[in-house]
Amino acid sequence: MTPPKKRTSKFLETFHSLPRRAKPHYVSTFGQGMAPAWTDNKVLLGGKGSGLALMSQLGLPVPPGFTITTDACVHFLKTGKFPAGMDQEIDQALKMLERALDRKFGDPEAPLLVSVRSGAQISMPGMMDTVLNLGLNDNTLNGLAEATDNMRFALDSRRRFTAMYGDVVLGITDEHGCPFDAILSEHKAKLGVEVDSDLDEKTLKAVIKDYRALIKKETKKTFPDDPRKQLWGAIRAVFESWNNDRAKVYRSMNQIPDEWGTAVTVQAMVFGNRGEGSGTGVAFTRNPSTGEKDFYGEFLINAQGEDVVAGTRTPLPIAKMKRKMPSVYAQLLEVREVLEERFGDMQDLEFTIEDGKLFLLQTRLGKRTGAAAVRIATDLVLEKKISKEEALLRVDPESITQLLSPVFKGSGKKRAIADGLLLAKGLNAGPGAATGVLAFSADEAVKRAKASKDPVILARVETSPDDIRGMKASVGILTQHGGMTSHAALVARQMGKVCVAGCGQLDIDSRSGCLTSRDGRVLKAGDWISLDGSTGEVIAGKIDTRRSDVLRSMLGSIKPSKDGDDVRFRRIMKWADQVRRMNVRANADQPDQATMAIALGAEGIGLCRTEHMFFGERKLKAMQQMILAKGPAERAKALKVVLPLQRKDFYGILKAMGSRPVTVRTLDPPLHEFLPQDEKGMRGLAEKFKMPLKEIRKRIEQLHESNPMLGFRGCRLTFVVPEILEVQVRALLEAATQLRKEGVKVKPEIMIPLVGTRAELAVHEKLVRAIADDIRKTSKIKVPYLVGTMIEIPRAALTADQIAKNAEFFSFGTNDLTQMTLGMSRDDSSIFLPKYVENRFYDINPFESIDQDGVGTLMEWAVYQGRETRPDLKIGICGEHGGEPRSVEFCHLLGLDYVSCSPFRIPVARLAAAQATVRELLKPNQL
Amino acid sequence: MTPPKKRTSKFLETFHSLPRRAKPHYVSTFGQGMAPAWTDNKVLLGGKGSGLALMSQLGLPVPPGFTITTDACVHFLKTGKFPAGMDQEIDQALKMLERALDRKFGDPEAPLLVSVRSGAQISMPGMMDTVLNLGLNDNTLNGLAEATDNMRFALDSRRRFTAMYGDVVLGITDEHGCPFDAILSEHKAKLGVEVDSDLDEKTLKAVIKDYRALIKKETKKTFPDDPRKQLWGAIRAVFESWNNDRAKVYRSMNQIPDEWGTAVTVQAMVFGNRGEGSGTGVAFTRNPSTGEKDFYGEFLINAQGEDVVAGTRTPLPIAKMKRKMPSVYAQLLEVREVLEERFGDMQDLEFTIEDGKLFLLQTRLGKRTGAAAVRIATDLVLEKKISKEEALLRVDPESITQLLSPVFKGSGKKRAIADGLLLAKGLNAGPGAATGVLAFSADEAVKRAKASKDPVILARVETSPDDIRGMKASVGILTQHGGMTSHAALVARQMGKVCVAGCGQLDIDSRSGCLTSRDGRVLKAGDWISLDGSTGEVIAGKIDTRRSDVLRSMLGSIKPSKDGDDVRFRRIMKWADQVRRMNVRANADQPDQATMAIALGAEGIGLCRTEHMFFGERKLKAMQQMILAKGPAERAKALKVVLPLQRKDFYGILKAMGSRPVTVRTLDPPLHEFLPQDEKGMRGLAEKFKMPLKEIRKRIEQLHESNPMLGFRGCRLTFVVPEILEVQVRALLEAATQLRKEGVKVKPEIMIPLVGTRAELAVHEKLVRAIADDIRKTSKIKVPYLVGTMIEIPRAALTADQIAKNAEFFSFGTNDLTQMTLGMSRDDSSIFLPKYVENRFYDINPFESIDQDGVGTLMEWAVYQGRETRPDLKIGICGEHGGEPRSVEFCHLLGLDYVSCSPFRIPVARLAAAQATVRELLKPNQL
Repeated sequence: MTPPKKRTSKFLETFHSLPRRAKPHYVSTFGQGMAPAWTDNKVLLGGKGSGLALMSQLGLPVPPGFTITTDACVHFLKTGKFPAGMDQEIDQALKMLERALDRKFGDPEAPLLVSVRSGAQISMPGMMDTVLNLGLNDNTLNGLAEATDNMRFALDSRRRFTAMYGDVVLGITDEHGCPFDAILSEHKAKLGVEVDSDLDEKTLKAVIKDYRALIKKETKKTFPDDPRKQLWGAIRAVFESWNNDRAKVYRSMNQIPDEWGTAVTVQAMVFGNRGEGSGTGVAFTRNPSTGEKDFYGEFLINAQGEDVVAGTRTPLPIAKMKRKMPSVYAQLLEVREVLEERFGDMQDLEFTIEDGKLFLLQTRLGKRTGAAAVRIATDLVLEKKISKEEALLRVDPESITQLLSPVFKGSGKKRAIADGLLLAKGLNAGPGAATGVLAFSADEAVKRAKASKDPVILARVETSPDDIRGMKASVGILTQHGGMTSHAALVARQMGKVCVAGCGQLDIDSRSGCLTSRDGRVLKAGDWISLDGSTGEVIAGKIDTRRSDVLRSMLGSIKPSKDGDDVRFRRIMKWADQVRRMNVRANADQPDQATMAIALGAEGIGLCRTEHMFFGERKLKAMQQMILAKGPAERAKALKVVLPLQRKDFYGILKAMGSRPVTVRTLDPPLHEFLPQDEKGMRGLAEKFKMPLKEIRKRIEQLHESNPMLGFRGCRLTFVVPEILEVQVRALLEAATQLRKEGVKVKPEIMIPLVGTRAELAVHEKLVRAIADDIRKTSKIKVPYLVGTMIEIPRAALTADQIAKNAEFFSFGTNDLTQMTLGMSRDDSSIFLPKYVENRFYDINPFESIDQDGVGTLMEWAVYQGRETRPDLKIGICGEHGGEPRSVEFCHLLGLDYVSCSPFRIPVARLAAAQATVRELLKPNQL
Repeated sequence: MTPPKKRTSKFLETFHSLPRRAKPHYVSTFGQGMAPAWTDNKVLLGGKGSGLALMSQLGLPVPPGFTITTDACVHFLKTGKFPAGMDQEIDQALKMLERALDRKFGDPEAPLLVSVRSGAQISMPGMMDTVLNLGLNDNTLNGLAEATDNMRFALDSRRRFTAMYGDVVLGITDEHGCPFDAILSEHKAKLGVEVDSDLDEKTLKAVIKDYRALIKKETKKTFPDDPRKQLWGAIRAVFESWNNDRAKVYRSMNQIPDEWGTAVTVQAMVFGNRGEGSGTGVAFTRNPSTGEKDFYGEFLINAQGEDVVAGTRTPLPIAKMKRKMPSVYAQLLEVREVLEERFGDMQDLEFTIEDGKLFLLQTRLGKRTGAAAVRIATDLVLEKKISKEEALLRVDPESITQLLSPVFKGSGKKRAIADGLLLAKGLNAGPGAATGVLAFSADEAVKRAKASKDPVILARVETSPDDIRGMKASVGILTQHGGMTSHAALVARQMGKVCVAGCGQLDIDSRSGCLTSRDGRVLKAGDWISLDGSTGEVIAGKIDTRRSDVLRSMLGSIKPSKDGDDVRFRRIMKWADQVRRMNVRANADQPDQATMAIALGAEGIGLCRTEHMFFGERKLKAMQQMILAKGPAERAKALKVVLPLQRKDFYGILKAMGSRPVTVRTLDPPLHEFLPQDEKGMRGLAEKFKMPLKEIRKRIEQLHESNPMLGFRGCRLTFVVPEILEVQVRALLEAATQLRKEGVKVKPEIMIPLVGTRAELAVHEKLVRAIADDIRKTSKIKVPYLVGTMIEIPRAALTADQIAKNAEFFSFGTNDLTQMTLGMSRDDSSIFLPKYVENRFYDINPFESIDQDGVGTLMEWAVYQGRETRPDLKIGICGEHGGEPRSVEFCHLLGLDYVSCSPFRIPVARLAAAQATVRELLKPNQL
């Protein structure tokens, strides 16, 4: 036996194999004629450094400076020392910088002041540390005052620099936060002023003195006034900030490897606060919200970047600059053209104007909404700036669900929040907007939905399959416990319901029927509440919502627009469909879900859960009767009621899917999920069936399992009680026969769940084929069908060569496969899994994205072994992972035939599948 | 990636590759000078046919005949047809037979009568069909009457033959059983007689007539009177009997492959009922009960085999034959010598004496008790008939536990059963005899054990870890639910307690404190009850017991005997130890268990479960306090109480084991196992800790998990609450340091459970090493120790290359690994797993013997990958499988360093490990 090859995704492999120099060096200059060592190299220079180098190369005005590479950082983090030779390189770069600017570090007349900033390969906004105005000391203060013609500003800069340096570089904090702020507040109080800008020069000097005294007290050393010492301290601090807690958490949340390290950019300070001819601003080359091709941004006259951030002054829209600073505006429009030409994408930029002279401080890929991403990518193709394949790579698959989610009408939500109605914030588990009256149990939700036209929001501590009827009857689901892949979240997404999950800030009390916010507000059953499933906000009261226009257009409930988002959505989906190798199917159990799935591009159903069909009252009753039956005769009687009802269900869904394949999974959950577990429910059941309560309780106790996930369900159940299988298969194939008779070329695929051995599948296959033969004989109509199995038990993957002998298809059930392979119950893992992900035990939550090292190895094994036995074996995935972009790419690389996911994730999967294909086909240097 | 090689055990591989002929032929003759085609070939001829051929070759007197091979049967079962050419071969053999005997099929004067019997490779007594006196019809009846000089006998033989043929070959049965018996009873009633032998010739003729009429009515055909037709019908029936229900169940229970098929032996009839010079009997070449070298058996004069079976006459001990039939006796003694010489083992034989002439009908390996097996094997070595290695293969490892189990004193049990005190029969889950007073809860058991000297038997519906204190306080455990590997069974075997599990015939009611047998007898708490854990019998009342002499001798509580079973037990164990490659360790948590383990040959402890140490009241209270703690400070306080207590425990067990390695597993179970789950227990807890009941309930609810097996336990728990790990590791290493100080060269090994990723282990390893360093610094004593991990989660096996980077050893936890790999909860599987095994979905219950195809593949992978990373990686197994012979052989073939099992299984594992080594070393033809 040989070990498996590592299957790093092609993308990542290529990413990491970008050419690196044989002998590392560590500094790259830019600006004012200094040639960068590399230009477009985010890996080494970080996003900021790479952007500056590129702009420098393009001849755009950037304040000169240099970038210390991530290599140096990695070396420092590993060894605790700066790499040998880095100091000479920095000295050399500093000299070049001084020469270029004709200023000098520590020069009292023409002092060189620099900013020191972090910059990782992928932007981590606000996560790491920055030091501005580095180089200030008693000597250089006047130089700055002269340069800015503003002693007060110079003093304030020095005050800020001292505090920033004390905090960031020297690490002076106390339990109350920043002790420098405390000193400042003291002085303000003494002076009787409210805002910093009211501090006079004298006070500022006193503050600086106190700051320096504090630093001396805390560090037992005088504040370093040598600019070179300051610089080295700042570089070290920025390197170390890579490993501060917020940066670690951010990386963990955003799947950024810990090994990357950050670059450090040292850049000459420019000043936007030198009067009315100066200013600062940010801009996007296109509208980041809509994607429209207009120059979008804002600026402040006579201000520095911090003033924009502080929000004390309101910036002006960039269009106003046209009148106020026409030449700078013209220059910016030119910059915009140059950048879009070079990057072939929407960029954002930060700029400062110093005495009418424009300086660009940063450029990077502009963040955008889903709608904007689609618009920009498709427009760029129409503008012939990029290819269709490139356009596909430009849209984050996750972001396009934004186009399909329900929305709050008008500005209702804004007003509600302004009115103080925000109750809490939970996880944005099911995107979109929902408003309705509160119900605290499934029954109540169903009742309320029946009794009134008011939409219902179901609030539960957590949901279980018992709640499905209630979830179906509701427009939104709110839970106190459970993560992004909790039962509530999964089912909500499949149903396309809005969901805010794991909202621990609320106390949901189902018994007394109320929820309480942290600040003590109480909402009762029947009260209106609104959920924003895209942000996780929970708001008291009613805020009207509506379906998004894109979705209405896709469903044909409004006409396609002429040039709206729906047109562009269709356009990019069409391109994705032209490119992708894998098929995309839907997980759907009901005709309306099937219709939705087709509208969103489903090419079949990959998972129809028959148990979801049992939640109508008549069917549920029959099912319960079957479970409570005292012998085969009673059981048969109950199942006889089920047969025509299930046949009708299957007829509906098969008809909706037409000639597309429909994979139907036979009964999967354990029987106790069909029975109530609480006293009240048991009583109701006893009444319904005129049985003694004791007997009901006994039966329910009998069905109790210590680990139901590993218990009596799936094919284990249908093996012991084959009548259930027979009724389901008969219902399906009779419905299929009827539709064939009606000329619909239906393609049912029968999927056996929880198979662990070939023999289990063989027994089921035999039974299925016998029923099919029987129906064919009676009807004289041949319905083509397949028999296959879920691969969801590790043993099934390990013995796939055997199992493939009786399976015409495999479908990976990665939810259960993950739980078993990792020995981790999804429902119970919330107590430790977040800590696991935070500590990088797993790169990503394995219930969100496939654990490629563990579960992925089993999948690869199963694909290989299964196709060894049966080269034409059809293989798909129907776990929730089938709609997650990274997992979709993994499935593509494994050679799967299709992915299947909830209807609302279908566009995500289509796009992700296309991206996977493009990435595989692109040559490394085209990435 | 290439698929793994199949790892059939060497033994089975060799077995199946025994030379077979290129061109199959199907018949082998024997007896009276007819040369067999093969002699010692059970695969082709079955046990019976092979024995007859061998005896024939050895010149021993066997009635002539021929055997149709298993090849023919396999062909028949596959195709439904006899293989081409078989008919000619049978014709030829029949001709030879007729010539040899000078009798002919259907000849009225000298008719050839034959028996037709099944004979599989492994004996399946009574499972398949037999037809005697085949060849009888109107013509040959007189010939038989003349040959036996007894018309009544001839008629009775024909009656029996007709019924047997009608039943076995023609398949005539009805729902009441055998319709032939009904006819017979009718005639007896009419005649007013009670026993068959009182039927007169006239009545017998009438019975035969009625039999034939019934057959004609049922089959619409006349009874076949042509002997050849009879023969072919019988052959077909025997072949088909391979697949009857009882045979299938038997094979399933005894792990005999379905593909083997049976041979058919056709043999001339001989008659032991031809007068006082005739007779029939069975004998063993040595005493099958004690192994003593005496000729052992019994016989009946003037009788046929059936008479022995029927039990209507009492046979005589074989020694009596010496006087009654001296020459036959002398001849039998000679046969005994020849057989023992040839087989080198104790054989049993069946014989018939016809008119003073001895015929051997069968010989096979004699079944024996564990004590006899050991005695015979060791004696044969001393007699220089076999080698030590061969002797090791002669003893079934399972059987030697019989030598160690407690026994009922004298004939107490026999008398009790004769008195009608047998209540029920359950599973023989923990061997030995136990008697005591009933307790229905763990608390009660503890109380009763404290309050009185009477031993306690704990009766529970099923047990959980809460019951461990109670189990420890009891001498025997009785459960209503659960199989051979239920919690009760596993813990009982580890503790060496007698256990009858899954005794569904009893209704155990813990609440009202009584148990009820099927026939309504009720035993209450405090009543005496006795358990035979070797047979599963549950008997009302007290039956005195005692430890077996072998065990007392091993423990040194009696002096070794001079030539008793204890001497031979030591002898064979010594040979096993000389041969085996793998080490054998014990799963033990207490010093007394450790002492027992060493006495039984343990070379270390492979699994010390620290949680079992928490079941003393003080420790349990501290643990509960820790769990209920409101913050780190309270938790630390509780753990401070634990530290010295655990240190004392570890001191005890380490000291007992001396310089043998001791693997200690850090806390594994979920926290809720330490808290009561019922109302009463919660109230007690609230009182104990002076906490509001509501708070206790809330905490217990918080800890509730839907699938605890896959939940918050093992290293997940110690990662989130590292204080627990710290206390345990500190307690262990401080105890070890103290012992080193005292000159004991202890070797602790710290094992982290439930590891699924390398990072989890790395975090724990770091913590362990930090504590060790700290203790070393303080004490200035260096304790060598290892850090390793359980491999019990599939992902751990799949990523073993990674995990081995931080592990100095692996220990397979095949209990959990099986549950997760098969997706099957041990506790919940009883509803379907028996059916699975019965239907051969699994060859053996995977919780009893390792599932080699599934779990075994992961194990092989982990061994391979682990040693790729770390070639000297120590690998063992500490699941209950480590004491199961087939699994031990598998571990040997995988290259494991040791197996670890409960103390009482250690001799089993030692022997099984030796057998695995011998089998691997032996050349195929020596097997």
